[in-house]
Amino acid sequence: MSKHKRQMNLNVFLMNVGHHEAAWRHPGTEPQHITDLGYFTRLARLAEQAKFDSLFLADILAVGKNVKHGAALAGLEPFTLLSALAAVTERIGLIGTVSTTYNEPFHVARKFASLDHISKGRAGWNIVTSGSDIEANNFNQDAHPEHSKRYDRAAEFLDVTTGLWDSWEDDAIVIDRESGTFSEGAKVHEINHDGHFFQVRGPLNVPRSPQGYPVLVQAGSSEDGKEFAARYAEAIFTAQQTLGEAQRFYADVKGRLGKYGRHPDELKILPGISAIIGKTEAEAKEKEQELHELIIPEYGLNQLSNMLKVDLFTYPLDGPLPELPNVEEINGNKSRFQLVADLARRDNLTIRQLIQRLAGGRGHRTFAGTAVQIADELEEWFTQGGSDGFNVMPPYLPEGLEAFAEEVIPELQRRGLFRTQYTGSTLREHYGLNRPVNKFVNVPLSRVSGV
Amino acid sequence: MSKHKRQMNLNVFLMNVGHHEAAWRHPGTEPQHITDLGYFTRLARLAEQAKFDSLFLADILAVGKNVKHGAALAGLEPFTLLSALAAVTERIGLIGTVSTTYNEPFHVARKFASLDHISKGRAGWNIVTSGSDIEANNFNQDAHPEHSKRYDRAAEFLDVTTGLWDSWEDDAIVIDRESGTFSEGAKVHEINHDGHFFQVRGPLNVPRSPQGYPVLVQAGSSEDGKEFAARYAEAIFTAQQTLGEAQRFYADVKGRLGKYGRHPDELKILPGISAIIGKTEAEAKEKEQELHELIIPEYGLNQLSNMLKVDLFTYPLDGPLPELPNVEEINGNKSRFQLVADLARRDNLTIRQLIQRLAGGRGHRTFAGTAVQIADELEEWFTQGGSDGFNVMPPYLPEGLEAFAEEVIPELQRRGLFRTQYTGSTLREHYGLNRPVNKFVNVPLSRVSGV
Repeated sequence: MSKHKRQMNLNVFLMNVGHHEAAWRHPGTEPQHITDLGYFTRLARLAEQAKFDSLFLADILAVGKNVKHGAALAGLEPFTLLSALAAVTERIGLIGTVSTTYNEPFHVARKFASLDHISKGRAGWNIVTSGSDIEANNFNQDAHPEHSKRYDRAAEFLDVTTGLWDSWEDDAIVIDRESGTFSEGAKVHEINHDGHFFQVRGPLNVPRSPQGYPVLVQAGSSEDGKEFAARYAEAIFTAQQTLGEAQRFYADVKGRLGKYGRHPDELKILPGISAIIGKTEAEAKEKEQELHELIIPEYGLNQLSNMLKVDLFTYPLDGPLPELPNVEEINGNKSRFQLVADLARRDNLTIRQLIQRLAGGRGHRTFAGTAVQIADELEEWFTQGGSDGFNVMPPYLPEGLEAFAEEVIPELQRRGLFRTQYTGSTLREHYGLNRPVNKFVNVPLSRVSGV
Repeated sequence: MSKHKRQMNLNVFLMNVGHHEAAWRHPGTEPQHITDLGYFTRLARLAEQAKFDSLFLADILAVGKNVKHGAALAGLEPFTLLSALAAVTERIGLIGTVSTTYNEPFHVARKFASLDHISKGRAGWNIVTSGSDIEANNFNQDAHPEHSKRYDRAAEFLDVTTGLWDSWEDDAIVIDRESGTFSEGAKVHEINHDGHFFQVRGPLNVPRSPQGYPVLVQAGSSEDGKEFAARYAEAIFTAQQTLGEAQRFYADVKGRLGKYGRHPDELKILPGISAIIGKTEAEAKEKEQELHELIIPEYGLNQLSNMLKVDLFTYPLDGPLPELPNVEEINGNKSRFQLVADLARRDNLTIRQLIQRLAGGRGHRTFAGTAVQIADELEEWFTQGGSDGFNVMPPYLPEGLEAFAEEVIPELQRRGLFRTQYTGSTLREHYGLNRPVNKFVNVPLSRVSGV
């Protein structure tokens, strides 16, 4: 591995049996194990052996209506699972989704500070604002709050959580048994936040954690989402279908950091990739076809209807999409709506074809080919201004992860694009991110590095 | 061990460095490790080797003003820690406190269902309603809600969480790959709860867990608390100073179960015991004195002022307590207030003496003696209608737990009062509790046993 070559960051996004919506029907997957810690331990250790920067668990606060034909996100609550995985792994980062719309900042700050301690600095938070009425209905609300209001709440939520993470200075605990001083009171701060959404006195009841803050990740790519990311996020998981789109997104978001006093390197952009890998291209395409044949149209129609906010069940499967609402009317995942609408229009797809195109990654880029072919693609995106690395989304597990770990990663390593050993111990170190300066400490307004 | 002799249930209540308020100043404790998973892993495995039914982590949603002279409950968020401990233990039950006042039932139901899956049926929930304004101030409220209102909320909270735990029938998941049926839709239920505090549609997004529900534990001993326990709880952690008090409490609570259609055996009563163990009684008393000499009066005064809702800093340490408010005026831990007030009056204690008496267990029973002496006491309480077992509160760690595990438990085993091997695998099996019948399943209104 060249010492000076820019390195990719690779996250593996684990979803129960894999990202392909029909993965659970594939004979190689283990849907009977989606609530089994042993199953996830195997996957996490496999990813760690392959030197992934991090693993990621997504979340939604409801079970969809698709429970009959699959259950992509029914299973273990991600945070519970990440805490357990912290105990059985040593180096890989542990990123979980937590919604700012249906949580309280004190709880969230506390959980991430605890996970960061337990994992010795490997916690990351994928900040989402949630996107559906079915979640609202589990939290005393008839309907999901409006998009921009959710982002206002998210911004205030971040102000509170970062304040709480700073509320204990790094050297607050002194443990002087002789004098009876456990901690220096002057280094443990109330935050006295009194805002529009939250009133929180603090301090947090967890001392400052190894990373200071968990790595802050964001996944919304709407206008509000990009601005939020530019201000707060240190990594973005994003769905981009073509290199051109990825390059435009990359330049757009990186260009926004300056106004918040941030350097473009302080935010890593990781497009999703759901890759089916074969010894030959033909074998990969065959595997893809095999998975596509397991798709249950009713499941795909339901997913697609939710994404597009149109009931597609009344339209012919082999006909075109009906007229869609304007993106302005979408109060959910705006950027995904736009991506799917553009994709259908650009490639002139029928509803059935669109379902197949989305089945592997819900709008994330899909790929079927050899390890060399996929490495070529990743290298191109990475070197041509499309990304800082990738959010690897195995379409079916464990095989999809095994193939990526055993064939694609060694190819990237041969090209000097990815680490062969962990060089750091925290997630911030893996991603090359600075440790946040504590805002209660009186130092110049710059960032210090190292832990 | 006699096969037919009634067996004690023993829970170990782990608190950072131990329950004695000065434990962190004792040279044998490890206050530098209170955020270290390795430290808690050692303690959990030690407790598991000793065949404890369960370990318990308490919680409070704020850091007190005592941060300078100790930090009993600053450290890791209990649920995060329990999840990690689930991964490194195999048989011991894992009980955590979660407040119904400052949480949403959907989140709580989900976390416990997940922990129960991850631990293969070892989760327990200590249900508290919280007791202080400092917690309210971290959750957008100026003051703590009134006592009976908190219990009303707790009752509705339990209705929602038990509904959610039942929302997937045990055999809902079928995984028929051929027909494409992941789960039987008719066995996954919305709960459509529309109550005073909560509106929750459901279903939960976690399939029903090994125990059905986590073991439901309760720790309040006020009138509201006892009634709540009789209706919902399967174990009670309680503070009782004398056998007489313990017997009255035991008879009182067990006597309330009938009106809820429950048998007295469906609720296990576990008084707390903080024991200092020596090879001789003199050695034990010496250790106790050593710990008492480490007490910082300011810390104790603060704790006591909080318990009694009176600012004691203005009264002489070696004088009596001032006049106290009526218990009706206490909007916090009413039963602990009463216990402390009674104790001071009964034994005619000065403020300093009272601080020392409370230092080992905050009002729980303390003891210093040999393993045989403590076993005698436990046996007496257990056989004379005072308890079904005990909540063991090591005053300092790890030594206090080691001594109990290596000296007291073998003595109890010799007397045939405690298991020498785990006979069950779930926490319900350890405690001899039935698995709850799913309320959506059309069966006669009785309980089925076994998992």
